[in-house]
Amino acid sequence: MIQFELEANDSNSRAGVLQTPHGTIYTPSFMPVGTLGTVKAMTSGEIKELGAEIILGNTYHLHLRPGDELVRKMGGLHQFMNWDGPILTDSGGFQIFSLAKLLELNEEGVFFRSHLDGIQKTLTPEISIAIQQNLGSTIMMCLDQCLKLPASRQEIECSIALTANWAQRSKEASVNGSGVSGEQALFGIVQGGGELDLREQSLEQMLEIGFDGYAIGGLSVGETKEEMYSVAHHITPKMPAEKPRYLMGVGDPKDLLEGIEAGVDMFDCVMPTRNARNGSLFTSRGKISIKQSRYKEDPAALDPDCACSTCKNYSRAYLRHLFKSNEILGMRLNTFHNLFFYLSLVKQAREAIKGKRYLKFKKAFLQKYQSGIEGD
Amino acid sequence: MIQFELEANDSNSRAGVLQTPHGTIYTPSFMPVGTLGTVKAMTSGEIKELGAEIILGNTYHLHLRPGDELVRKMGGLHQFMNWDGPILTDSGGFQIFSLAKLLELNEEGVFFRSHLDGIQKTLTPEISIAIQQNLGSTIMMCLDQCLKLPASRQEIECSIALTANWAQRSKEASVNGSGVSGEQALFGIVQGGGELDLREQSLEQMLEIGFDGYAIGGLSVGETKEEMYSVAHHITPKMPAEKPRYLMGVGDPKDLLEGIEAGVDMFDCVMPTRNARNGSLFTSRGKISIKQSRYKEDPAALDPDCACSTCKNYSRAYLRHLFKSNEILGMRLNTFHNLFFYLSLVKQAREAIKGKRYLKFKKAFLQKYQSGIEGD
Repeated sequence: MIQFELEANDSNSRAGVLQTPHGTIYTPSFMPVGTLGTVKAMTSGEIKELGAEIILGNTYHLHLRPGDELVRKMGGLHQFMNWDGPILTDSGGFQIFSLAKLLELNEEGVFFRSHLDGIQKTLTPEISIAIQQNLGSTIMMCLDQCLKLPASRQEIECSIALTANWAQRSKEASVNGSGVSGEQALFGIVQGGGELDLREQSLEQMLEIGFDGYAIGGLSVGETKEEMYSVAHHITPKMPAEKPRYLMGVGDPKDLLEGIEAGVDMFDCVMPTRNARNGSLFTSRGKISIKQSRYKEDPAALDPDCACSTCKNYSRAYLRHLFKSNEILGMRLNTFHNLFFYLSLVKQAREAIKGKRYLKFKKAFLQKYQSGIEGD
Repeated sequence: MIQFELEANDSNSRAGVLQTPHGTIYTPSFMPVGTLGTVKAMTSGEIKELGAEIILGNTYHLHLRPGDELVRKMGGLHQFMNWDGPILTDSGGFQIFSLAKLLELNEEGVFFRSHLDGIQKTLTPEISIAIQQNLGSTIMMCLDQCLKLPASRQEIECSIALTANWAQRSKEASVNGSGVSGEQALFGIVQGGGELDLREQSLEQMLEIGFDGYAIGGLSVGETKEEMYSVAHHITPKMPAEKPRYLMGVGDPKDLLEGIEAGVDMFDCVMPTRNARNGSLFTSRGKISIKQSRYKEDPAALDPDCACSTCKNYSRAYLRHLFKSNEILGMRLNTFHNLFFYLSLVKQAREAIKGKRYLKFKKAFLQKYQSGIEGD
């Protein structure tokens, strides 16, 4: 189904190769987010051109629009959106807790109102798997309970118990149903908030059930950076070496570098794409807010050290003009650049790990990145 | 500067070659509209890939945003927007009459308030040329008075007199100033509403001044289709055979075919791009409104007879989903297809003229086009 091979490591950080029925992923890997069957503003051809090897689809969003039954009828998400590479789908849980109106949560599942039309819906571990089978993703995720932090120890204890129960049911559902594009891998999710012993307990529960890969969930949800890094550095090295490790919904460039140092293999985050549309752009010398008047007559490339087509062909003055005029092309060029930046970051990290110089690379990258074009 | 050569004709319709300092244009030619320094939703690379040989820029819009002085500082419109092919700029007059708040019009020029911030501005023939020189377009247009139709004969008489006066001053201004990208061609505009004798008189006045090409203005501004066709068929054959002829702001596929039959060489229209963003798509069997529920589960290509990448890679169901979800990718795929349709239409017309079978082609095209997928 999927096969992970460790290629090199440098202390806890790892370079690996993940074989899937839809193609090979070289780790550490960043997954652009394709919420509604499109990485916003990009064609699937551009995503390939950018070197992305796997993208993420949102179960909650696709279930509501256009509906997973329709996607199945159209041959699955790969065919529907014209992307033949690997796709990971989340369980839908995170969006229900963050976007929908949550009505009730009990052992059975979650009951909520759609953020689009207010219609009442139910998501259980079994329903989430059935939706992901209709979508036909390469890697499915178990439904879990993702707490907002801070949370009490008792709340966290309850949430990992529920998450373990749902993980077991997800696994059972995954072997019973059948996906539109053949066999699908399934990842379990480690919860536990900032409590390191509960994180360990949650990992134990996941290992007992047994999954094709293991994810760290419930981070980047309100805790401090220090807490996030402390959890990542504590739990990641304890996860099985022979399986891929995925840090969910994280993060900014520094977060990725910390995660990679801890031994994480896979990341996803809306930051590069969402920020791009808001004119917030990543460069080797820090973030740029392209709408600022200082760029009005600036003929320089967005990032003179970047080799992407946006930086090769357009000036900051032009990008600012497009942003101020609300032109679609601006969102396109910005998104292309930000994704290039993220994908190039993990590619460089991979090379550094293989060259046994990861910490040196990380330090040099952050030193330049934190020097700050805009001095912030 | 520019050089037009007639390659073939079939009755009044013509196939020609227009050499410009920025590249060759094979006519009949359609110019995608790039209002604000971008053909909306497209990169310049895609415009080239689509086979467009010339694009249009809007003087009024670029003067307001980002400002033609800034564009000049950035090396001109070609460099600013990364398009090295020919660019035609309009005079700005049409947008002042249609979009801005017109305060006064007299022999000197037009006085108006910007539609963006209400600031009072002036446009004269000299200012329009100076702006177009800052933009550095390949072909400039004279400021003219474009009346809304219907208009009285007396109004039309006044407007052609004013247009002739402004044309003379535009020509004088064009030889005095200097463009950022070198020598620029200048076209005169024939006005005269639906009055055929006044159209002839206006043409005479333009010929007396002498331009690099001649345009028919003041059509598609409220008159009936019959009136538009009658003017085009009457005046176009009287325009000098050795100069390019441009029918401004026209039109739908049938309008283009009528114009070509009359002997028009160049067209521009926002229809393919604007309609695309609204989900109105051109196919060989008529227009499609992609939002309709009949396409919800339709796995067919938008136009099964179309060879564009949208039609080769995506289903109507996917395009409908993108449109309903307001996804940028939907506007991109739709725009790409509609422009492909228009550019392929003029290319086919050109081949038919060269093969002396233009009327046969036109009839067959319209028969299929008017059969109507949606029965309308």
